[in-house]
Amino acid sequence: MKGSLLYEGKAKKVYTILGEDNQLILEYKDEVTAFNGVKKDYLPGKGRLINLISSILFAYCNQQGIHTHFIDSLSDTEQIVEHTRMIPLEVVVRNKATGSIQKRLGLEEGVAFKEPIVQLYYKEDALNDPFINEGEAKMLTGCTSEELHYIQAEAKKVNKVLLPLFQRIGLQLIDFKLEFGRRHDRTIIVADELSPDTCRLWEAGSNRKLDKDVFRQEIGSLLESYEEILTRLEAGAHV
Amino acid sequence: MKGSLLYEGKAKKVYTILGEDNQLILEYKDEVTAFNGVKKDYLPGKGRLINLISSILFAYCNQQGIHTHFIDSLSDTEQIVEHTRMIPLEVVVRNKATGSIQKRLGLEEGVAFKEPIVQLYYKEDALNDPFINEGEAKMLTGCTSEELHYIQAEAKKVNKVLLPLFQRIGLQLIDFKLEFGRRHDRTIIVADELSPDTCRLWEAGSNRKLDKDVFRQEIGSLLESYEEILTRLEAGAHV
Ligand SMILES: Nc1ncnc2c1ncn2[C@@H]1O[C@H](COP(=O)(O)OP(=O)(O)O)[C@@H](O)[C@H]1O
Ligand SMILES: Nc1ncnc2c1ncn2[C@@H]1O[C@H](COP(=O)(O)OP(=O)(O)O)[C@@H](O)[C@H]1O
Ligand SMILES: [Mg+2]
Ligand SMILES: [Mg+2]
Repeated sequence: MKGSLLYEGKAKKVYTILGEDNQLILEYKDEVTAFNGVKKDYLPGKGRLINLISSILFAYCNQQGIHTHFIDSLSDTEQIVEHTRMIPLEVVVRNKATGSIQKRLGLEEGVAFKEPIVQLYYKEDALNDPFINEGEAKMLTGCTSEELHYIQAEAKKVNKVLLPLFQRIGLQLIDFKLEFGRRHDRTIIVADELSPDTCRLWEAGSNRKLDKDVFRQEIGSLLESYEEILTRLEAGAHV
Repeated sequence: MKGSLLYEGKAKKVYTILGEDNQLILEYKDEVTAFNGVKKDYLPGKGRLINLISSILFAYCNQQGIHTHFIDSLSDTEQIVEHTRMIPLEVVVRNKATGSIQKRLGLEEGVAFKEPIVQLYYKEDALNDPFINEGEAKMLTGCTSEELHYIQAEAKKVNKVLLPLFQRIGLQLIDFKLEFGRRHDRTIIVADELSPDTCRLWEAGSNRKLDKDVFRQEIGSLLESYEEILTRLEAGAHV
């Protein structure tokens, strides 16, 4: 049975489960935010789309042998996950240049990296989630070098697994963000969400954007874009 | 014999040596610049101070078994170095928090890092020398992972060698920047300069700044500060 609200973020509410200390319920909200909360909107139905997409992607990762927090779907807007202690990192994997890396390194938009670029950001709203390196991540999170290497290797594995999945449904996975959490036994698993709110997806061929950049750049209907991703995934992601 | 001007940077002129393809003459200028050239001044005698300080520090590193480009002093403002192909990286080692890292990570000025923080910046004026991580450095410089690990380990070694040297003369080495170059056989050595233009030095106890921050923050006479560092080094750095 759903317990009390443990905490609430920009995209979801996190609930305890009565009598189940090791699990949580994530309930996705209909809010969308960008630029660290500066740009906001309320889009009824958005929570359902993110919850269903994230569930499909996590179930797929689990099936491919990646250790994630995802346990089961619960309702259109809710899922059951393992209760972890979150590591305050945003781990970004990039296959093609766009967004901040494009600007910082003066790259052309859409240029493919020979090897995926993995980046660490310190998840701290007050500092605007700064880009950090491994030594800084060690200092800020208390993770060991080995744990940080594991985290980055897992992020690359998720990329390896998701790239062909999206390719089969005509989408390019440009980049995505992961968060990791720690279990009681200190093992580290992929947590949080895997959704068009936290990745970039471009239609194959046309490069039409179907992710949160539609909202950031106001170039179309975010709900229709997410609906399209869900439809494609339901048709093509036979897990 | 001094050959032609090969190139000129913000701090020094680089000359070929006739009949000596593997060596260069670095001639230090009396200009001082900060904030990527936005703040400038002309300080007669500054080139001599930087040349003599950098020579002492490089000779010391050589003696301690670190492979550097430094061969010999030539005059008050000139030194002979190995001719390398420069790697477009600025490698920064930090012992205490100040400057950009302090701001980016919201740290208190002067707080000591448990382990020195090593950072890579892409040396590219047009991009304002952006902070990068290892994967980005691989992509931008063509260095292998092993080479980047070697470079960062050498930077830590330089720190290990310089910390006690400065301690003996009453100065704290807060942070410093290194550049690396490649020899014909592709081996990588420390190049460029090691000076109060490229490091931060605080007096022990008082935390009085004696480096280029004196110029950046306009808190005293830069020439007098550099003169003091040279005097202390000449008295205390028995190499
Ligand atoms: N498996 C999990 N265990 C514990 N906390 C989690 C788990 N997965 C996600 N969270 C956390 O849930 C919180 C709410 O998510 P979200 O609304 O995306 O927050 P934010 O605004 O910080 O991005 C975040 O702090 C996130 O790290
Ligand atoms: N051993 C070396 N071989 C070749 N080039 C070098 C060597 N040491 C330093 N340099 C280069 O000399 C140039 C001039 O130095 P400087 O005036 O500090 O330039 P900048 O304005 O780029 O900092 C720089 O491009 C630097 O990388
Ligand atoms: Mg979030
Ligand atoms: Mg320079």
